[in-house]
Amino acid sequence: MDNFADRLLSAIEKKRSGVIVGLDPRIDRMPAFIITEASSLRSRDESLRFAISTFHRLVIDAIYDLVPAIKPQSAFYEQYGIPGMLALADTIEYARGRGLLVIVDAKRNDIGSTAEAYASAFIGRTMAFGIESVAFNADAVTVNPYLGTESLLPFIETCEQYGTGIFVLVKTSNRGSADLQDLPVASGDEKVPMYVVVAKMVDMLCQRLIGKRGYSSVGAVVGATFPEEATRLRKLMPNSIFLVPGFGAQGGGAEDAARCFDADGMGAIVNSSRSITYELPTLEISKEDFYTLVRSRVSKMSKEINSAVATGIRD
Amino acid sequence: MDNFADRLLSAIEKKRSGVIVGLDPRIDRMPAFIITEASSLRSRDESLRFAISTFHRLVIDAIYDLVPAIKPQSAFYEQYGIPGMLALADTIEYARGRGLLVIVDAKRNDIGSTAEAYASAFIGRTMAFGIESVAFNADAVTVNPYLGTESLLPFIETCEQYGTGIFVLVKTSNRGSADLQDLPVASGDEKVPMYVVVAKMVDMLCQRLIGKRGYSSVGAVVGATFPEEATRLRKLMPNSIFLVPGFGAQGGGAEDAARCFDADGMGAIVNSSRSITYELPTLEISKEDFYTLVRSRVSKMSKEINSAVATGIRD
Repeated sequence: MDNFADRLLSAIEKKRSGVIVGLDPRIDRMPAFIITEASSLRSRDESLRFAISTFHRLVIDAIYDLVPAIKPQSAFYEQYGIPGMLALADTIEYARGRGLLVIVDAKRNDIGSTAEAYASAFIGRTMAFGIESVAFNADAVTVNPYLGTESLLPFIETCEQYGTGIFVLVKTSNRGSADLQDLPVASGDEKVPMYVVVAKMVDMLCQRLIGKRGYSSVGAVVGATFPEEATRLRKLMPNSIFLVPGFGAQGGGAEDAARCFDADGMGAIVNSSRSITYELPTLEISKEDFYTLVRSRVSKMSKEINSAVATGIRD
Repeated sequence: MDNFADRLLSAIEKKRSGVIVGLDPRIDRMPAFIITEASSLRSRDESLRFAISTFHRLVIDAIYDLVPAIKPQSAFYEQYGIPGMLALADTIEYARGRGLLVIVDAKRNDIGSTAEAYASAFIGRTMAFGIESVAFNADAVTVNPYLGTESLLPFIETCEQYGTGIFVLVKTSNRGSADLQDLPVASGDEKVPMYVVVAKMVDMLCQRLIGKRGYSSVGAVVGATFPEEATRLRKLMPNSIFLVPGFGAQGGGAEDAARCFDADGMGAIVNSSRSITYELPTLEISKEDFYTLVRSRVSKMSKEINSAVATGIRD
């Protein structure tokens, strides 16, 4: 399997878009045409799986030719228990079938062999009874750095083996990210915010997985809500692709997100979830109107981002 | 539902043990009598679920009257995909039926409504189609603080509502925890390690959930592998119950773990996983011998911890 960064960059070029669509199953916000059909099924478990899988199949049908990747948010699947996890597997499989890359936003991590198990679960394979199998078949997963470099290594080894990737949380999009991520760390006579220490860690680790195009399969999560920090981080991690949350509903604009791109107009993917799939004019929306709405929202966002990135490069 | 801390302390008193048993499904390390029966099933998915559920049912049968709680490690279940998640649900249900508290070690977190979804998944309930249901029915879950105070609040609200608990990662047991957790943070003219900042955050947040016995449902993960840090942290978080990993296989001894207890001999639970359920003399071990071995290992560990704690209090 090719290096994940190379695969992602090719997909971005092919789709002419650095936009990715976040999939957050929230059944109470889905259109009535989904809920009505789901409710008619025999068991609650079937209804849950049907609603989540069907909704996201529709979203994927509407956007698969417009974007390089989707980002299912694991938390929203997990809250529905086993039917939710079945729907996560359904969604991943369907997206792959449509040629999309899949980045599972699971923010996992642990130590040693436990980190290895998380890597196997999302971006690797698991051996049992003498046979290897795939658990949740993603191309990349988001990971949390709090447990240190050592905790990231099993993920990196898995990426190397299977051509998959990770995005390490560096500066998250929430206001409260300041609590720890902005803490002034004494570094010699200087003080640097903790996210800078994490960025340097990512830059060091990412060297091992640099693809043909100069980018690594070890990327970074950098919120669109902090444009100045993004500019600084872009310089500190020149080989990492940024996964940029916080666009739209959380307040980040296209100009802010554009700071996460490189001078070559590459190097970042910008996520939007709620503003694409929810916030519907009415829950009574028809299937056809839903399809058209999702598609047009994604096209509009791609244009905005592309234009802001082009302006940034020109300036 | 009573406050989680009160429930846990009652269970510790009743069992006269602060030991908890970590459940890490690793099929390739399970005894042959499990594997043979599992392999005879029709499908791989059935074999996986059967092996994991049966193995842990046996472990629970052997220890349910000796310890207050079990700690299933989510990563090891997730690596087996849907059958793994089904087995996680089986294990939780079986343990509850045997009167054990269940702490899922999932090290989750995210921002805002996503953190809320994780809380719903493990220690709360989820609404769909106008009905609330339970996803993974745990009493407590471990959480990662990297996204800040704000990211912990949805968990705390869920704990309040459902009488459940969280354990926040403060100082983890791995050597590499130093990378970020020990970073010197400039605080006025002083420098303190980052884990001290996190400890103060936990101490502040925990005040809202203090039970009748003075302990909070917001606990802290503090590794047995760092006894000096544990002594310092014990003072900084007087109301938090410590979940102590790193005993046994990772090198922490009973005297080290004892530092995590309070002067009243309460306030901590010490986990052991591999040293209890794996590291078998032979994989050909019989069911009866496995049962006896697991039971005697847990009894021995409880005695060691109780004796070290009693010595610590006397001194």
